[in-house]
Amino acid sequence: MTRSSKRIDSPVKIEKVNRDNMKDFLNLIGGLARYEKAAPPDEAAKRRLEIDALSKNPPYLAFVAYLNGKPVGYIIYYYTYSTYDGRRIFFLEDIFVVENARKKGVGKELFSFCLEEAKKKGCCELQWAVLTWNEDAIGFYKRMGGRRQDLHIYSIGEKDIG
Amino acid sequence: MTRSSKRIDSPVKIEKVNRDNMKDFLNLIGGLARYEKAAPPDEAAKRRLEIDALSKNPPYLAFVAYLNGKPVGYIIYYYTYSTYDGRRIFFLEDIFVVENARKKGVGKELFSFCLEEAKKKGCCELQWAVLTWNEDAIGFYKRMGGRRQDLHIYSIGEKDIG
Repeated sequence: MTRSSKRIDSPVKIEKVNRDNMKDFLNLIGGLARYEKAAPPDEAAKRRLEIDALSKNPPYLAFVAYLNGKPVGYIIYYYTYSTYDGRRIFFLEDIFVVENARKKGVGKELFSFCLEEAKKKGCCELQWAVLTWNEDAIGFYKRMGGRRQDLHIYSIGEKDIG
Repeated sequence: MTRSSKRIDSPVKIEKVNRDNMKDFLNLIGGLARYEKAAPPDEAAKRRLEIDALSKNPPYLAFVAYLNGKPVGYIIYYYTYSTYDGRRIFFLEDIFVVENARKKGVGKELFSFCLEEAKKKGCCELQWAVLTWNEDAIGFYKRMGGRRQDLHIYSIGEKDIG
């Protein structure tokens, strides 16, 4: 499924992840990992990501952005849930644009796509997390209308789960 | 489905949400909302919570804790996803114990239950959010082994989704 941008003349095309663009998608995740100074998915993780993306009830949804035919960004999202509202929250897990394609509106188009999807799916909220040191991303999110929540995120990793 | 605690002699029983305990469950959510100084679910939200909990592919899973037959706490969780690991994350949305049943080990049993579930379901992580002012909860989470992540949470509410 190819989804044209709202701006008819936009050169940005947003494509749902499928067999054909899987390699582009997995490469882009590696790009985000390098940017975040994190370990990129290894071969086993890539296989799981592929199987999960193409599964009948996928645990996440993903879209790749193409600019002039080149893969330049992606988003991954899933639905969480608002206990007090009783409706789904659109949780944007990843949004990423490669360095040499920034400041061309790709991120904004991907973000607008998320807002449209959230609305279409009846979500009561769009949420996401950002690394505290990522000032560029924080600036972008503020411009997009995001408001910081009074929340800390805590975690227990696999080794300590038991 | 009633699930006995690991401690055979524990008076805490953890029960999956079902038609019979739905009222207890919804009341407990109201208790957490009051504690968090948030608006509790209204009648429409309660109906959505009930329908969603009992649906075939529920957007969240919930369990109620009983102590000596009385509903004293609950958890709500769902699965999110680790992009770099390619596996599901167990996300604990709510964990709550009513005030007059605290310091009796109920919270610890609910938390241990989550760790067991996360392990059983092959999750690579257990994650949750906590309000920054909730020092009691933060103390509890630290004792449970939680580590704070370098993340900010951002949000766009329904009115601004479009």
